[in-house]
Amino acid sequence: MHHPTGVSRDSAAQTAVDILARLHTRRPRVHCITNSVAQNFTANILLAAGCVPSMTLSPEEIGSFVAGAQALLVNLGTLDAERRKAITTAVVGAVGSRLPWVLDPVFVDRAEPRAALAHELIGRRPSVVRLNHSEFLALTGNKPSPDAAMAYARKNKIVVGLSGETDIVTDGERIARIGNGHPLMANITAMGCAGSALLAACLAVEPDAIRATIAALVIFGVAGEIAAAKSTGPGSLAVNIVDNLYNLDEPKLAAYAKVD
Amino acid sequence: MHHPTGVSRDSAAQTAVDILARLHTRRPRVHCITNSVAQNFTANILLAAGCVPSMTLSPEEIGSFVAGAQALLVNLGTLDAERRKAITTAVVGAVGSRLPWVLDPVFVDRAEPRAALAHELIGRRPSVVRLNHSEFLALTGNKPSPDAAMAYARKNKIVVGLSGETDIVTDGERIARIGNGHPLMANITAMGCAGSALLAACLAVEPDAIRATIAALVIFGVAGEIAAAKSTGPGSLAVNIVDNLYNLDEPKLAAYAKVD
Amino acid sequence: MHHPTGVSRDSAAQTAVDILARLHTRRPRVHCITNSVAQNFTANILLAAGCVPSMTLSPEEIGSFVAGAQALLVNLGTLDAERRKAITTAVVGAVGSRLPWVLDPVFVDRAEPRAALAHELIGRRPSVVRLNHSEFLALTGNKPSPDAAMAYARKNKIVVGLSGETDIVTDGERIARIGNGHPLMANITAMGCAGSALLAACLAVEPDAIRATIAALVIFGVAGEIAAAKSTGPGSLAVNIVDNLYNLDEPKLAAYAKVD
Repeated sequence: MHHPTGVSRDSAAQTAVDILARLHTRRPRVHCITNSVAQNFTANILLAAGCVPSMTLSPEEIGSFVAGAQALLVNLGTLDAERRKAITTAVVGAVGSRLPWVLDPVFVDRAEPRAALAHELIGRRPSVVRLNHSEFLALTGNKPSPDAAMAYARKNKIVVGLSGETDIVTDGERIARIGNGHPLMANITAMGCAGSALLAACLAVEPDAIRATIAALVIFGVAGEIAAAKSTGPGSLAVNIVDNLYNLDEPKLAAYAKVD
Repeated sequence: MHHPTGVSRDSAAQTAVDILARLHTRRPRVHCITNSVAQNFTANILLAAGCVPSMTLSPEEIGSFVAGAQALLVNLGTLDAERRKAITTAVVGAVGSRLPWVLDPVFVDRAEPRAALAHELIGRRPSVVRLNHSEFLALTGNKPSPDAAMAYARKNKIVVGLSGETDIVTDGERIARIGNGHPLMANITAMGCAGSALLAACLAVEPDAIRATIAALVIFGVAGEIAAAKSTGPGSLAVNIVDNLYNLDEPKLAAYAKVD
Repeated sequence: MHHPTGVSRDSAAQTAVDILARLHTRRPRVHCITNSVAQNFTANILLAAGCVPSMTLSPEEIGSFVAGAQALLVNLGTLDAERRKAITTAVVGAVGSRLPWVLDPVFVDRAEPRAALAHELIGRRPSVVRLNHSEFLALTGNKPSPDAAMAYARKNKIVVGLSGETDIVTDGERIARIGNGHPLMANITAMGCAGSALLAACLAVEPDAIRATIAALVIFGVAGEIAAAKSTGPGSLAVNIVDNLYNLDEPKLAAYAKVD
């Protein structure tokens, strides 16, 4: 196990506490290009963490919205023509004004044109790419592993957030493993998408992308764990995670954070 | 404080009671052009009040849907190309057949093309413009106040519903202040959008637009207050407001209404 | 009352039990072209039953998604230009590879172009057409009845699932009546749409379309009944039906199934 540059458990928990406090104080605006299935839940997760979501895709408007935001999420689910155009405009805007942005290459394993777009976007250097095992395999051609994730991060000069039973976060030099979250979270649509939006929010208030990513995964995972313990199924989990994220505080984060 | 033409507390509470009863009996059809984030929650709020929502944007179909509806909502959130076209067709249809309609100029402070469209739509005389303080400032150039709202309503021959800690409703002559609602409501996406849809529904059953607006804000605010008292956060509030709107009755409305 | 070829109560309950078990084991991929209002709830219903939903409409991608799926849902709600194109591509793909598919002609009674599309699609022989009384009347010109449903099924060589207080399922020869479900289910948007998606999922694991349809209506109706008993209104019902579908087991299905 690696414990490189300051991502020990205690420092990670403290980072999560600090970043959550900054979200509540600064209330960053996060522009989300996300799939239509995920929009409502994603907006509610951002609001529950104190952030201000916006979601428009209109080519006439998206420039202004991105310019007025502190971070951008690009999620490839339900990738229609308008979303494709919106992505290009938004990413050009974000790169031009050095806005942090997250790429979530949803279902990149299911359609070739989507994979092509994902490769192109990674070439524009998102701050973080958040993806699951199937998506990692489809995108990199390699079996997901800590080493493969580090190599991919290094090669593309990005932070990789690889979701799984244990989440792996790496910038190619440093690596952290996050054990928060609950299996029931996989039974609700848009759970990962909303987590990526929260990650964009954390990047808005923390310049070190690996710290922001660890914090986001810890915050979201802890809220999910506490929520799952109170839930009778995925429906109530979706409600309870919003409530628990809204009520998340320092003692809970410190007690539940699982990072090494 | 003004108490003009019949918007005293008791008459306002009674109006809300009457209008809610009419919603349950007449089950008006409300066509909603609303942002994709808000569609599901908006439909559930309308259904909970006994109304029949429809949401299509297709240029081929929207004429028939509006013609078959008793009120129209135009919400500017997520303003893509198709929504722009749909708005024009729907508003022309509504104006032509004297259908009441509500304009909710969401995020008009965030993008110039959106503000331009909002100005144009206000020129077509919606029955009611429902907006918050930032949107009022962006649209009118004036700091939000009862006097500014009255002036804007008079000038444009519309009813203005200005949301805030206290809501202000005015047609330029009469004015009412509504103190219902709960701060937690601001933490759920589409809460205001859904409230504007309920307002469109009230216009479908009450020809006096200021009375319909007061009733809608009281009904929605009371449902939200009762729901907030039972909720542990914004997630459960979103569920509970639907339940409480569905179960709202005359004694609760009469007991909770805060109007002067 | 008819008891033709093996759709007695006990065999229907057993079919529902078997099909639910197959959903959990095989986890079929179901591609859904559905209205934007219904997408989130539909995805959560499919996930709660163990299935894998996808929802993209992009003309570039939908071919791959349908080819990788085990069933297709075509729902005509919010019928915009992109959805129209997506429907054609997806249905051609489904028919070409003999994928089962469900047509849900939502609001076909509200706009003529939608009715025309529905007729054309029925000519391409969906496995099942699921519709309510108004939609049946608009589509067939006949008052809904068991005999009218049988005639329509026979003529078009489809299975008809006619929703109502009692649901009727027929392939033109066999007929079954399903008494599961709860009136409160009509107060939540997308309830019928999500039920049709679950039906598509059942077709993915059961080649006999009438058995799959009966099973889907029983499974969804039982989950809804149990959920309604725990709910204080439509908001909590929407949450509870997801939980109860997730937790649905053989004894509950066997105890609650109402089929004859």
